Amino acid sequence: VAGSIVLLAPVLAAVKMGGGSSKKKAMVNPTIEKSKAKVVHMCTFSEIEDTAKDGKAAYCRCWRSGSFPLCDGSHTAHNKATGDNVGPLVINCKK
Amino acid sequence: VAGSIVLLAPVLAAVKMGGGSSKKKAMVNPTIEKSKAKVVHMCTFSEIEDTAKDGKAAYCRCWRSGSFPLCDGSHTAHNKATGDNVGPLVINCKK
Ligand code: FES
Ligand code: FES
Repeated sequence: VAGSIVLLAPVLAAVKMGGGSSKKKAMVNPTIEKSKAKVVHMCTFSEIEDTAKDGKAAYCRCWRSGSFPLCDGSHTAHNKATGDNVGPLVINCKK
Repeated sequence: VAGSIVLLAPVLAAVKMGGGSSKKKAMVNPTIEKSKAKVVHMCTFSEIEDTAKDGKAAYCRCWRSGSFPLCDGSHTAHNKATGDNVGPLVINCKK
């Protein structure tokens, strides 16, 4: 019995780490500007209007977009691969 | 040798799952509106102006805010706990 516990300990530890990191402890951003301590973007209404199509601009919140900080639809593949349910913040330029 | 491989297989599988999920395969959103297939927010310039303080409104991209879709500063604890570097999208209401 003692031998079994010794053999199982690393398995249980690895499973625990994996479970914890996929649920609560994982990074949100795997690739974008990882040399920065914190990735903050600042946009003015004018800049958003310049970016907008049909008066709307979608900003990424999944950190998988190839045109970050804008959404390029990559959240769909991320949601499918992980079971997640994230999507963009859409700014409508109307007053 | 064959016996060692059998014993090690579950350890290696668990470590692989844990590593993969913390880097690329993890969900970004552990808790917000998980009953929805996709969490998209839509905001107009008027709504952003109403929300803004000193002409600015910060929108969460870490999915840890208690006042989602707004940023409440929770990205700081998330970054510290995980080694991540995420931060909000800040909208400046000036033209
Ligand atoms: S690509 Fe990230 S939210 Fe759409
Ligand atoms: S609380 Fe999520 S980015 Fe600030």
